[in-house]
Amino acid sequence: MKTLSVALGARTYSIQIGMGLLSDPELYRSYLQGSQVMIVTNETVAPLYLDRLRQALSDYRVQEVILPDGEQYKTLDVWNRIFDALLDARFGRDCTLIALGGGVVGDMAGFAAACYQRGVAFIQAPTTLLAQVDSSVGGKTGINHPAGKNMIGAFYQPRAVIADTATLETLPQRELSAGLAEVIKYGFIRDAAFLDWLETHLSEVLGRESDALSHIILRSCEIKAEIVAADELEAGQRALLNFGHTFGHAIETGMGYGQWLHGEAVAVGMCMAADLSARLGWLSGADLERVRRLVASAGLPVDPPPEVSAERFLELMAVDKKVLNGQLRLVLLRHLGKGLVTGDFDPDLLSATLHAWDR
Amino acid sequence: MKTLSVALGARTYSIQIGMGLLSDPELYRSYLQGSQVMIVTNETVAPLYLDRLRQALSDYRVQEVILPDGEQYKTLDVWNRIFDALLDARFGRDCTLIALGGGVVGDMAGFAAACYQRGVAFIQAPTTLLAQVDSSVGGKTGINHPAGKNMIGAFYQPRAVIADTATLETLPQRELSAGLAEVIKYGFIRDAAFLDWLETHLSEVLGRESDALSHIILRSCEIKAEIVAADELEAGQRALLNFGHTFGHAIETGMGYGQWLHGEAVAVGMCMAADLSARLGWLSGADLERVRRLVASAGLPVDPPPEVSAERFLELMAVDKKVLNGQLRLVLLRHLGKGLVTGDFDPDLLSATLHAWDR
Repeated sequence: MKTLSVALGARTYSIQIGMGLLSDPELYRSYLQGSQVMIVTNETVAPLYLDRLRQALSDYRVQEVILPDGEQYKTLDVWNRIFDALLDARFGRDCTLIALGGGVVGDMAGFAAACYQRGVAFIQAPTTLLAQVDSSVGGKTGINHPAGKNMIGAFYQPRAVIADTATLETLPQRELSAGLAEVIKYGFIRDAAFLDWLETHLSEVLGRESDALSHIILRSCEIKAEIVAADELEAGQRALLNFGHTFGHAIETGMGYGQWLHGEAVAVGMCMAADLSARLGWLSGADLERVRRLVASAGLPVDPPPEVSAERFLELMAVDKKVLNGQLRLVLLRHLGKGLVTGDFDPDLLSATLHAWDR
Repeated sequence: MKTLSVALGARTYSIQIGMGLLSDPELYRSYLQGSQVMIVTNETVAPLYLDRLRQALSDYRVQEVILPDGEQYKTLDVWNRIFDALLDARFGRDCTLIALGGGVVGDMAGFAAACYQRGVAFIQAPTTLLAQVDSSVGGKTGINHPAGKNMIGAFYQPRAVIADTATLETLPQRELSAGLAEVIKYGFIRDAAFLDWLETHLSEVLGRESDALSHIILRSCEIKAEIVAADELEAGQRALLNFGHTFGHAIETGMGYGQWLHGEAVAVGMCMAADLSARLGWLSGADLERVRRLVASAGLPVDPPPEVSAERFLELMAVDKKVLNGQLRLVLLRHLGKGLVTGDFDPDLLSATLHAWDR
């Protein structure tokens, strides 16, 4: 088992990474206060892992709420079902929510924990690669609004993240690839050596070799924890983590939630942000080709869908949270391994990037 | 103008109390950052004060969202209209929400500010006595769930509270009395001398003499600010502020939101909590009579509605947020002017109190 600490003062918590952690009763004991535990999971994950977790929690009063599976269900109404379950069970302020599932479950359960009776304890038990390397770490929680993704939410830290690598064995290949988009992202924005490693070892990762999986989860969480610890409320450099996300959110919203996986949209978004970085003269043509090759090798798309026009992209990007005082800010690459947040670019170059794909 | 500071470290803010503050453009300038301002108000308050506030904000890009008036509208769906308006207007993270209205508007707008893009700036402009002395101070925000009041919410501090006493001139008498319930509460739990003052000057307050109103608003905010500063997240003594509220919430929920005003339910709740305190030997019969007389003189009810049975009270109180590890905790009076939070009482005495009203 590998342990990593996310240093956030009074809200410091640890990330545990390893095989079979979900079934270890001892692991939960130190994080649970009261006797009431609400497991929030979804229809896909429940048949696979709910029993395993319930058994590990046999000393507690455990209830569960099973949500439908998919980003399109990350809505106010589905979120409200968690409160229905908590109030049906008459759970008090000392209860703990455990998010068992991917990013959508984690986002909704975390946001419900942030708001139930103005805040109760919360543990992340991510079961997808995406959730293990990204969404379970950092305290961002929330739901979507028809007009924009993650527009309603809270910064709310878990008591712990328990990442059981055994859960990745059942993960569909498409979702494994989607998780890899965020893994690759960490290399692009922060760690050129990790990029080299990924290019060399991608086949082991795709083959789900456990050492390779543990390595990418740990390194991803290290980079994310470091950035989050320095900027919990996203006042500055935390925005680096949004590399590929402003373009990506536009794809997700433009196509309708649930059509593209988040990681797939981010993968294309990274290629688009790299394209703009190249137009600014920061990346060479060879760099750009390297970005696209690594993304494609991970089984991810590199081109935006023809359904989302350049104009629609701009419109959707204008409501993105990265807009400050009306100015669109993007995460671009100064070079491979170094991202930067900037609003200081020629809008014509952005337009050129958006029109570069013949649509 | 009287100014009071609520000392909460980085979240410290000031309360401004005085005649005509709503129309003072200078007052807002120091609290607004970006140019985007969303006024959240309701159908009753908008015709009275919206223009006045808009004029004071003529230098900003101001939008408004007008909610229906009443506690029964403090729901997830109505709350969502604030996000609809913010997203329609394409407001970014640097926008400011101003709550113009009573407690319901303040609770919903504050909770929306806490959650919009994971947190934007927020100013309280309370227009009822209740909101000026209680709900606008302390950072509690939230909405109701059919199974319980304020079950979904956040602790979120405003940038400032602007309490314009001129707005009380149009307040219906019933609502003035409802606000007085919280004013009297501060005397009961913390300040016997303030109780004496209220008994002597109640007619001036009910006659809306401006000096008397300013005095009770300032003294109420002072006491609340002192308690909140010592315990922002309600880990301990802040619960004192819930004197009368556990019984009161049961009345509000039992009768259906919108039937009883919050202050009316709290008024009865204080009489019930005083009754239990007397059964514990902490108040004399004369004390109890004094409690009931002051509450009644303020134009408030002193007896619970016959529709809510003793059994229903217990049931509703069991889901109250003051339940810790399954034990019901109440705020009782050790003597007049001193409240205390305790779960250490004989349940039979609580039952005797609930059955004392012949229903």
